[in-house]
Amino acid sequence: MPATAERLKKLGTETAYAVAEEAAKHAKEGNKVYALHIGDINIATPKCVSDAMKKAVDDGKTGYCPASGIAPLKETIAEYFTETRGTKYSADEVSVQPGGKPVIYKFLLAIMEEGDEILYPTPGYPIYESCINYFGGVCKPYIYKDSDSGFHIDLEYLKKQITPKTKALIYNNFHNPSGCASSEEEMKAVADICKEHDLWVLDDQAYYQLVYDVPVTSIVSLPGMKERTVILWTFSKIFSMTGWRLGAAVGPKDIISTINKLNTNTEACTTHFVQYGGIAALTHPEAKKFTEDLRETLKKRRDIIFRLVNKIPGFKAHLPPATFYLFVEVTDAMKMKGVTQLEDFRRLCLKETGVSFCTREHFGTPLPFETRKYIRFAYASADEKQIISAMDVLTAWMSNDSSSKVVDVNVISSK
Amino acid sequence: MPATAERLKKLGTETAYAVAEEAAKHAKEGNKVYALHIGDINIATPKCVSDAMKKAVDDGKTGYCPASGIAPLKETIAEYFTETRGTKYSADEVSVQPGGKPVIYKFLLAIMEEGDEILYPTPGYPIYESCINYFGGVCKPYIYKDSDSGFHIDLEYLKKQITPKTKALIYNNFHNPSGCASSEEEMKAVADICKEHDLWVLDDQAYYQLVYDVPVTSIVSLPGMKERTVILWTFSKIFSMTGWRLGAAVGPKDIISTINKLNTNTEACTTHFVQYGGIAALTHPEAKKFTEDLRETLKKRRDIIFRLVNKIPGFKAHLPPATFYLFVEVTDAMKMKGVTQLEDFRRLCLKETGVSFCTREHFGTPLPFETRKYIRFAYASADEKQIISAMDVLTAWMSNDSSSKVVDVNVISSK
Repeated sequence: MPATAERLKKLGTETAYAVAEEAAKHAKEGNKVYALHIGDINIATPKCVSDAMKKAVDDGKTGYCPASGIAPLKETIAEYFTETRGTKYSADEVSVQPGGKPVIYKFLLAIMEEGDEILYPTPGYPIYESCINYFGGVCKPYIYKDSDSGFHIDLEYLKKQITPKTKALIYNNFHNPSGCASSEEEMKAVADICKEHDLWVLDDQAYYQLVYDVPVTSIVSLPGMKERTVILWTFSKIFSMTGWRLGAAVGPKDIISTINKLNTNTEACTTHFVQYGGIAALTHPEAKKFTEDLRETLKKRRDIIFRLVNKIPGFKAHLPPATFYLFVEVTDAMKMKGVTQLEDFRRLCLKETGVSFCTREHFGTPLPFETRKYIRFAYASADEKQIISAMDVLTAWMSNDSSSKVVDVNVISSK
Repeated sequence: MPATAERLKKLGTETAYAVAEEAAKHAKEGNKVYALHIGDINIATPKCVSDAMKKAVDDGKTGYCPASGIAPLKETIAEYFTETRGTKYSADEVSVQPGGKPVIYKFLLAIMEEGDEILYPTPGYPIYESCINYFGGVCKPYIYKDSDSGFHIDLEYLKKQITPKTKALIYNNFHNPSGCASSEEEMKAVADICKEHDLWVLDDQAYYQLVYDVPVTSIVSLPGMKERTVILWTFSKIFSMTGWRLGAAVGPKDIISTINKLNTNTEACTTHFVQYGGIAALTHPEAKKFTEDLRETLKKRRDIIFRLVNKIPGFKAHLPPATFYLFVEVTDAMKMKGVTQLEDFRRLCLKETGVSFCTREHFGTPLPFETRKYIRFAYASADEKQIISAMDVLTAWMSNDSSSKVVDVNVISSK
């Protein structure tokens, strides 16, 4: 067989999938698994969305549609963004996508030359790093400070990472995996840096609206930002539509037009009838209510997991103002268990308790100076009872008390 | 605003979309349009497929699924390929895709280094050329001979295009836009060339099974070919599912595993519930019957358009054994109308008759030595009556007899 491409060596992946596989294997072997590794939601998509999609199939919306998306969906998204992002958008500033994720590589292809430097958060969504590397960019990570008031972007560190080759900054407010949100000052400081250095911005808004205790604002509402920002937006999280693969790139007309051209070269168009589901999600009162209820449900889960995690010996976490993740420091817990590697800790915990989670190492390459160790609990795919059971099991494990393991509880099975 | 990427200049597109837009504009201005430019099908998706998809939604298949596709669909595709392609496939040799098109760029990313030469057919699907160029490869087109017995790959020309830098060959049997099929000898000769020069093969089987008068065989059935071939396959054409965006890459395990990793970096996964529609398409008797009926319907249309085209002054075409395209030589017709450029001929025809079609220029860059001029009629989105009307209008136009234009017929409106 001929050789494959050398450059594939630069392609990363979402290593969280390996965690899911290990959890599934553990479950298959007859063990209870408490699946807190998946960024998915255990609640059905609103019926009004499914109904609109089914109707579109019956109406014959099964043929090709424009590469940029159907006109009524683009218009609906533009209206929704105008109403919620503090600045005006029109339909030709919207490119419909099969999910939020494709916006990452398409944004990079649209703005990045070989050798351009891209700023991105670490820990952060691992596909940033993978795509920057793979498509010939240079990874310039920026970091978060873990302070008494939670996680904050280390602005001094960020500024030091900038060189004349810096082309763009990836911003992820509200942040996966830490669940943190920028203060008004932090957001303004990031915006000022981007304007000063004339950077493109990819604003990953996957968790926009899944925000609990802080104002929900977008960096594009700040002066001079809309024209340099492409928003990654997705129906996945706020409408429990992760498997639908529906999202959008929203940004300046020229770059959206380029992204549309990339659509034509890659998946051709987003599934036609699914886009009608998207219109219902943004216009039907039932869907609006769904997001409000979802936020309430997730807030309750967050409050429970936050309270219980901080009772586990060796575990500590800040109350995350957004997303459905809890980023937990386990430096002490690892010492107590006598392990030095996060992967060893994760596997040991899965083996001995059945609790499955991702760690900081699944969110980009750790930097050499990182000494504190973190894991991430995803609490959208587990209900309150399941979360309580999982925390109970962990508490027992860290207390070297195995009695909780035999309690018969609703078990979170891995998908 | 900061600059966009220079390399975007190398990105092509499907210029057929511009044709669709012009046709839509012409229709909007109150004109009749006979839309023969679209490679889409004016027949609904089989109900059993839609029903299976809807049931999957109701069963909660709305969350994430594996990047490679759901296991039962991969197994079903592997069985279908084993039954129909003359060689055995297993589920780990299948990567589910949002359509057939994404297989083009993912195949190239998986095997092509910067500067590698890729052989591809011209005229041919325009995304081959666009993606080879854009992702840093070197375009090495091969051509077809127009002979009394139809279109055949010019094997001598193809051999001359091979250098030590040649890495892969894109093969498209059954061929868009010419509708031609390889004879047994031609297919064997292509396979021998690929083996002799140790080339990867992308076998674009988008129109496999839409074949009328010749045996349906796959190049992977020839010895030594399966291990070097990635098949681009799609549900789009044979099940009238173009807007569903469902297809697959089928090939050697290692390269499929690489393509799965690319899935993780791009669209994450193919729409979850749509994949259940795919299982029904490959297993439900109603869907099998649908494809048989579709082939019959298209064969009738083909026979009609072939017969009528050859009566139009200045138009001539071979009977295409496959696909739903008719590739028509209009060298004489252009002389009769006094135009030298294909685009001028196309626009003139749209303006004066309402008949809309793509030309050879929409299928990759024409080579300098090409003197004969061709257009492509797509006959899957027009019924028999509409085809007859369009040919009637064209005959009148070429005969300088405008009487047919006022006949009240069912008009093909552009989508």
